[in-house]
Amino acid sequence: MNFEQVNIPEKLVPDNYLQLGLAAQRSKQRSFKELLEKLPKNGWSDERIEELVHMLASLDSNNYPHKVGLGEREARIACKLVARRHYNFGHGIGRSGDLLEAQPKAAGSTLLARLTNALILDLIRGIGLPSCAGCFLVPMCTGMTLTLCLQSLRKRRPGARYVLWSRIDQKSCFKAITATGLVPVVIPCLIKGESLNTNVDLFREKIKSLGVDSILCLYTTTSCFAPRNSDDIAEVSKLSKQWQIPHLVNNAYGLQAKEIVNQLECANRVGRIDYFVQSSDKNLLVPVGSAIVASFNESVLHDVASTYAGRASGSQSLDVLMTLLSLGRNGFRLLFDQRGENFNYLRENLRKFAEPRGEIVIDSRFNSISLAITLATLAGDQMKSITKLGSMLHMRGVSGARVIVPGQNKTIDGHEFLDFGSHRSNLQVPYLTVAAGIGITREEIDKFFDIFNKCWNQIFQTKNEKIMSLLETTIK
Amino acid sequence: MNFEQVNIPEKLVPDNYLQLGLAAQRSKQRSFKELLEKLPKNGWSDERIEELVHMLASLDSNNYPHKVGLGEREARIACKLVARRHYNFGHGIGRSGDLLEAQPKAAGSTLLARLTNALILDLIRGIGLPSCAGCFLVPMCTGMTLTLCLQSLRKRRPGARYVLWSRIDQKSCFKAITATGLVPVVIPCLIKGESLNTNVDLFREKIKSLGVDSILCLYTTTSCFAPRNSDDIAEVSKLSKQWQIPHLVNNAYGLQAKEIVNQLECANRVGRIDYFVQSSDKNLLVPVGSAIVASFNESVLHDVASTYAGRASGSQSLDVLMTLLSLGRNGFRLLFDQRGENFNYLRENLRKFAEPRGEIVIDSRFNSISLAITLATLAGDQMKSITKLGSMLHMRGVSGARVIVPGQNKTIDGHEFLDFGSHRSNLQVPYLTVAAGIGITREEIDKFFDIFNKCWNQIFQTKNEKIMSLLETTIK
Amino acid sequence: MNFEQVNIPEKLVPDNYLQLGLAAQRSKQRSFKELLEKLPKNGWSDERIEELVHMLASLDSNNYPHKVGLGEREARIACKLVARRHYNFGHGIGRSGDLLEAQPKAAGSTLLARLTNALILDLIRGIGLPSCAGCFLVPMCTGMTLTLCLQSLRKRRPGARYVLWSRIDQKSCFKAITATGLVPVVIPCLIKGESLNTNVDLFREKIKSLGVDSILCLYTTTSCFAPRNSDDIAEVSKLSKQWQIPHLVNNAYGLQAKEIVNQLECANRVGRIDYFVQSSDKNLLVPVGSAIVASFNESVLHDVASTYAGRASGSQSLDVLMTLLSLGRNGFRLLFDQRGENFNYLRENLRKFAEPRGEIVIDSRFNSISLAITLATLAGDQMKSITKLGSMLHMRGVSGARVIVPGQNKTIDGHEFLDFGSHRSNLQVPYLTVAAGIGITREEIDKFFDIFNKCWNQIFQTKNEKIMSLLETTIK
Amino acid sequence: MNFEQVNIPEKLVPDNYLQLGLAAQRSKQRSFKELLEKLPKNGWSDERIEELVHMLASLDSNNYPHKVGLGEREARIACKLVARRHYNFGHGIGRSGDLLEAQPKAAGSTLLARLTNALILDLIRGIGLPSCAGCFLVPMCTGMTLTLCLQSLRKRRPGARYVLWSRIDQKSCFKAITATGLVPVVIPCLIKGESLNTNVDLFREKIKSLGVDSILCLYTTTSCFAPRNSDDIAEVSKLSKQWQIPHLVNNAYGLQAKEIVNQLECANRVGRIDYFVQSSDKNLLVPVGSAIVASFNESVLHDVASTYAGRASGSQSLDVLMTLLSLGRNGFRLLFDQRGENFNYLRENLRKFAEPRGEIVIDSRFNSISLAITLATLAGDQMKSITKLGSMLHMRGVSGARVIVPGQNKTIDGHEFLDFGSHRSNLQVPYLTVAAGIGITREEIDKFFDIFNKCWNQIFQTKNEKIMSLLETTIK
Repeated sequence: MNFEQVNIPEKLVPDNYLQLGLAAQRSKQRSFKELLEKLPKNGWSDERIEELVHMLASLDSNNYPHKVGLGEREARIACKLVARRHYNFGHGIGRSGDLLEAQPKAAGSTLLARLTNALILDLIRGIGLPSCAGCFLVPMCTGMTLTLCLQSLRKRRPGARYVLWSRIDQKSCFKAITATGLVPVVIPCLIKGESLNTNVDLFREKIKSLGVDSILCLYTTTSCFAPRNSDDIAEVSKLSKQWQIPHLVNNAYGLQAKEIVNQLECANRVGRIDYFVQSSDKNLLVPVGSAIVASFNESVLHDVASTYAGRASGSQSLDVLMTLLSLGRNGFRLLFDQRGENFNYLRENLRKFAEPRGEIVIDSRFNSISLAITLATLAGDQMKSITKLGSMLHMRGVSGARVIVPGQNKTIDGHEFLDFGSHRSNLQVPYLTVAAGIGITREEIDKFFDIFNKCWNQIFQTKNEKIMSLLETTIK
Repeated sequence: MNFEQVNIPEKLVPDNYLQLGLAAQRSKQRSFKELLEKLPKNGWSDERIEELVHMLASLDSNNYPHKVGLGEREARIACKLVARRHYNFGHGIGRSGDLLEAQPKAAGSTLLARLTNALILDLIRGIGLPSCAGCFLVPMCTGMTLTLCLQSLRKRRPGARYVLWSRIDQKSCFKAITATGLVPVVIPCLIKGESLNTNVDLFREKIKSLGVDSILCLYTTTSCFAPRNSDDIAEVSKLSKQWQIPHLVNNAYGLQAKEIVNQLECANRVGRIDYFVQSSDKNLLVPVGSAIVASFNESVLHDVASTYAGRASGSQSLDVLMTLLSLGRNGFRLLFDQRGENFNYLRENLRKFAEPRGEIVIDSRFNSISLAITLATLAGDQMKSITKLGSMLHMRGVSGARVIVPGQNKTIDGHEFLDFGSHRSNLQVPYLTVAAGIGITREEIDKFFDIFNKCWNQIFQTKNEKIMSLLETTIK
Repeated sequence: MNFEQVNIPEKLVPDNYLQLGLAAQRSKQRSFKELLEKLPKNGWSDERIEELVHMLASLDSNNYPHKVGLGEREARIACKLVARRHYNFGHGIGRSGDLLEAQPKAAGSTLLARLTNALILDLIRGIGLPSCAGCFLVPMCTGMTLTLCLQSLRKRRPGARYVLWSRIDQKSCFKAITATGLVPVVIPCLIKGESLNTNVDLFREKIKSLGVDSILCLYTTTSCFAPRNSDDIAEVSKLSKQWQIPHLVNNAYGLQAKEIVNQLECANRVGRIDYFVQSSDKNLLVPVGSAIVASFNESVLHDVASTYAGRASGSQSLDVLMTLLSLGRNGFRLLFDQRGENFNYLRENLRKFAEPRGEIVIDSRFNSISLAITLATLAGDQMKSITKLGSMLHMRGVSGARVIVPGQNKTIDGHEFLDFGSHRSNLQVPYLTVAAGIGITREEIDKFFDIFNKCWNQIFQTKNEKIMSLLETTIK
Repeated sequence: MNFEQVNIPEKLVPDNYLQLGLAAQRSKQRSFKELLEKLPKNGWSDERIEELVHMLASLDSNNYPHKVGLGEREARIACKLVARRHYNFGHGIGRSGDLLEAQPKAAGSTLLARLTNALILDLIRGIGLPSCAGCFLVPMCTGMTLTLCLQSLRKRRPGARYVLWSRIDQKSCFKAITATGLVPVVIPCLIKGESLNTNVDLFREKIKSLGVDSILCLYTTTSCFAPRNSDDIAEVSKLSKQWQIPHLVNNAYGLQAKEIVNQLECANRVGRIDYFVQSSDKNLLVPVGSAIVASFNESVLHDVASTYAGRASGSQSLDVLMTLLSLGRNGFRLLFDQRGENFNYLRENLRKFAEPRGEIVIDSRFNSISLAITLATLAGDQMKSITKLGSMLHMRGVSGARVIVPGQNKTIDGHEFLDFGSHRSNLQVPYLTVAAGIGITREEIDKFFDIFNKCWNQIFQTKNEKIMSLLETTIK
């Protein structure tokens, strides 16, 4: 509805009062126009966001007042609560197996999806990736989206069957390959001190030994648990360019770190990246459920979109749109910068914690999100104390901190990984990893050290008492 | 919160008044206990549904009052509106590449997902598939879920590369095969009158000619646009059993039709079906975005769940849970039965429409959802009138009715389909399809005929006028 | 926002798809224009209602994007949830002690309040009061609104101090007089059979004995608990006209009954009614909290509005507006008619219940909402059974049924009422009243008789057992 | 629902995960228990607030699953949206003309209303009124609530008819008296400099001349527009105590200012205050619609509550409860303190603005909320410039700033006020008032001066141009 085009009688409201209200409306109209060009500088109010979203939904055919549905899929929603939580969107996005096509039954959903993709692109460019040529949201997890990228690459290179993969011990990252039926070729990391780096030479050797044509792509990871470092994507990109083999980057939570963003931009300049894929929830603080495929080359994006076999959920686009509008460019920038500061704060405090206890914070300087602290003294000669520490932290509300102990082997889809979780096959010293993800607060970090300290002391004391009682028994 | 365990002072509320209120609460507690066993007979009120959903969400770690998040994925939600519409669920479902595993950070989401799957199973069994052994919701479209099934079958039969597919002209159904890199073998339908049936003999021949071990699976479809019939899945199931080749059924919107449901139950008795896959939105009236994999053999379901590479959106489970609670067993049954009646009503009226106009409703007796009416007289010798009819209906709010004209060829991922849309390669007579999907109302059907009639007359008149003016011109 | 005035680029959405959506929007625009003239025939969807309400709120100054508040009252809302539930309305309605004046800071609230009043008027006229000249909603209970009417009448007749009041035992109805400091003159009802009628003659006598100038107004009641009948407002209206004394009608829940509505219309033709006041919650199914003052003479309404000393809550107008839009004229009519049918159903069943038990349904033919059934046989010689019946019904979920026993005297603000609750001073036979209010369902009535029957039997049995055991004791 | 008392099967969720969730729940249970004693220190999350509110509503009989309504008022709500925005509360608060009585049909609403009153009392005591003995919320505006207090005082002193009222030019404040039919005796303020103070001597004289028994009460105001000062309530309280005449204080927006709060506490120690009444919206940042009656003597509060003739809206209690829970004690304290700081900031800036322009900020040192700046130089010899300034500010989004010019007489209910708006009868110099109300931000103040400056300059320039052209004309 639009009050401007209606003649509202004076007896219902004095015209001079009404005009003030209508003038205020017009400023909203301007902000909508600007939105069609770029992400607003300042966040929108909830009311304005919902107004836009309702307007969009009213453009979908299931919301036409006089619609007559004679098909098999008419976006009827049985439960009012469900309709309400989806703002009456029901038709999803894309069309018969192409995520980027417009949906004839749903002009609003189409606009929603495309606008969201445009705003994400604006955001990505703004935080340090000006060369990014395009991107789109896929309403599947990062792993499945990586699978989708691999599947679309296979259509281009039907004869290739190997995926050269720099080892990272994150299950779905590896399963993204096995799901496709392609053959993963694991490139173990180089160990330098206790940190882990990309073995670029081994990549090169494998390219030579397997043959360029048999290799579907090189597959690297930026964001990962310390002490593994971000892969050296610049060097791998050079190989990719040199041998004309596609390069796929798993950038799961890399949009939140300046260092990774810079690395991607740089790698594109010196080499080649076909797709980089990131999780929406990890970077944009929405619920789990979608990923973003981005590229420095717009033309290859459509290959991925048209590999999605069906019409997809629009719910994730809605989450991202609302979040971006709510934050605005400045709001996201603030979170982005705070994360960097909090990472430094976490590292400093971790070092202060480690030193007096005879532990070290492993020097993984190419990891700007996650940190690892050794647990050598706590462990002593057995690992039980370490797993107990993990569970104690968890019980006290600390989520996300993980303890890694040697000897945890695991087989995934027929491939065995020694010391799974450590990204290497010969782990000696147990450690704990923590991360400063986007949205973390300084209070959380302080509370963590408070809890960590208490748990540490408790375990240490118990251990000492056991040793003492053992000594006493021995003496007797 | 729970008022029963709190001593509320008399001065805040007289105890006898309070006790009446608390007694009413206890009945809700009983209904929750029953829910853990089966779908309620009668739908729940919105308030009760939301109470349950909020309770579930409060079990997830991101909603703990004193949580400390030190990981890379902590379900922080930046936008209040987004959090609200997800009832503060953020963690998604499953764990590192297994949709059915419990998520340690999210007891509530785990319970949500599993409860939803249990209720869907109860529903499926109740409407005529008592042999169904298990099922689960996949937050991807039907096509991608079919891809997931194919991928999991490939893990079992790594040497096989062919998928024998009874042609159906629905793009994403075919793309589900090409996405996997497997090779589709198209089995054209048998034409009987103008309706299309499964060519079971050709399936048999292909099995023999290609060799059992090279065939990944037989792939059939139940719900489709008339005049194609539902595939003869009983006969294909027998082949599947006889040759021990998996059988995958695309049952996109088949849960809403008694005939299809009975066919599936019967096919399982006489033969073999590994998975049957259906769309949630088409059958359960939720927004587009998820599918249900079901099986008569519980053990094979986990293969599919563990092929999903990552943690998935829980939003679709929430939609289905809320909808099932809102409808109850009786509410769904009512919709199910009404659809059947409305299909008959639509068919009768279509016949009444066709007869005086010299058209026929094609006898596709094994299709109990969709109907096709020929447009021979309207078309005359040119197809322009037909596409105009389609567009006129669309403009007047009729969605889902589709006109099919000869000569529309299409290439999908390198495979060419003649007369795409008609499920056959030699279409002669144009036709219109309409469907009676679940949720359709008698009023919609009446309105459709009103509009259809007007459009028909308008086109007919224009055509006659053209002919007349042509005749006049000729005479002069 | 308004998509029509914005140039949305083709790459965001194809223009032909967009145009279909925009066309659908325009039909909403038309329905808004119609609303400015009268209550819509059919109810609006929730989405459309909320769109209108949001639009209205955006016209209030507290929702202007760039507002600067330098006053003492700026409609700042601290709690997001509160703002949300009020759709961001904060400024209330009216201006410095006049409920009907426009509020300069709040064009939207002004429009909301006036539109609501206009729609209520349209409704009132439509259900049988075409002579109604105006009405407005007062965000106070019916009793306080009656007080407000009395206060405004006193401004007109400063010398008058008596209010002639036909007795009805509803506390707030009487307190409405005492609150003003005026002197109530109680006119007891005439008892005819067991039903109670207005003593018109006594009204006349009191006018003569007290003197016209000392009487502020005549004060009657239409809707009341049986066996009191609706007051004979036609006859009292004639007195009012004849002596030129104002006449105030308490029509608390009388808008829901055809008979009362007709009576009001008729009374206005033959006599005089200054104001008739009704509760919004009882007639329009909104939460408790407001009343409607109506008159056959528009000019006197403003006297009441300008007696309200301050700016008032707009929340109740919002409730009524949303409810009227949601029901539409037809929706209200349906409820109105169903209530009439359900009253007849209740009366029939009450008679069937009474007869075999030796009780009667008291013939209060001028009460078309409430019914009374005697409890003579159940009571025997003591009243304990009767109060027990009341409490048993209450415990089993029956609300609104009331038992009346003789001997309940009560003093209100210094005035003593014998047999309070029975509207008379010499009650002999206890009874139970039940009512068929708007919104009641046939299922509720059936359930009531089921419960009533069980309670009755239980009490009867206990009583008989007591008598038997008494007899036995006596015999022994 | 309560998960603790239900045996949730392990296959739905692993027990150790579930236990973590349940432990988190228990902490919410504790916070609810604490709430029954006092306002929480820190604000609650939206989720927790809504959980409590839903729990309360479920205790009301209209929300019982098996209720049977046979009365005339059963809290049926026709429109889902209305039910939703009221969290399904429908029964209102109080019972038949007593706002503080428990409502038998609504244990939850009763608890809601009483809990709200208890929390408000806790808040009032905490901000500097430890002697406050009780208070309750009245769902009417401040003016009508003052009327209610006067009406209840009249019941105590039926022979008294005069209300001694220190003039304040706020319409509804005066109408609160005339609504009751009592006779206002206006006590003009003393003018000291340009500021206005209570004329205590005149109060004393009037008491003597009219006679104690004929005076219902003394009626003062604390919060008002500068340059009127807060009344000297301590001195008036002494008179009240000395002569045993009730004292009613209009404290409309006085809960937000430390100085006023202290004054009230002090006045009670040295004298007598029967009731002090404040607006909820102005002090607690909820929508317009309710007021709070407070007293230093709990026993007299019930007189007011039982003067309200009917059952009242519970919606305003809900707003206040949610707001107080959302803010917590600390949240309100912060707003309270910030207001004080912003008042100082506003005064400083106003002085800086005034000085170079030859104007002054009038020294009304006993007004700690509102400020007045003279507009002598701007006005020159005509007032048109001044009203233009007012309208220019308003047009630019500045609400709440008011210009006062001499010569605006007004008659209210038969009483004439000269120079209405200025609180005095011989205003010479026009001025502008602005206020620093609770919730105001420093940004708003800065923006105001920016706009004020522009408007000032514009008017000044126009005036000078006119004078110049006049001069030129004259010279010629």
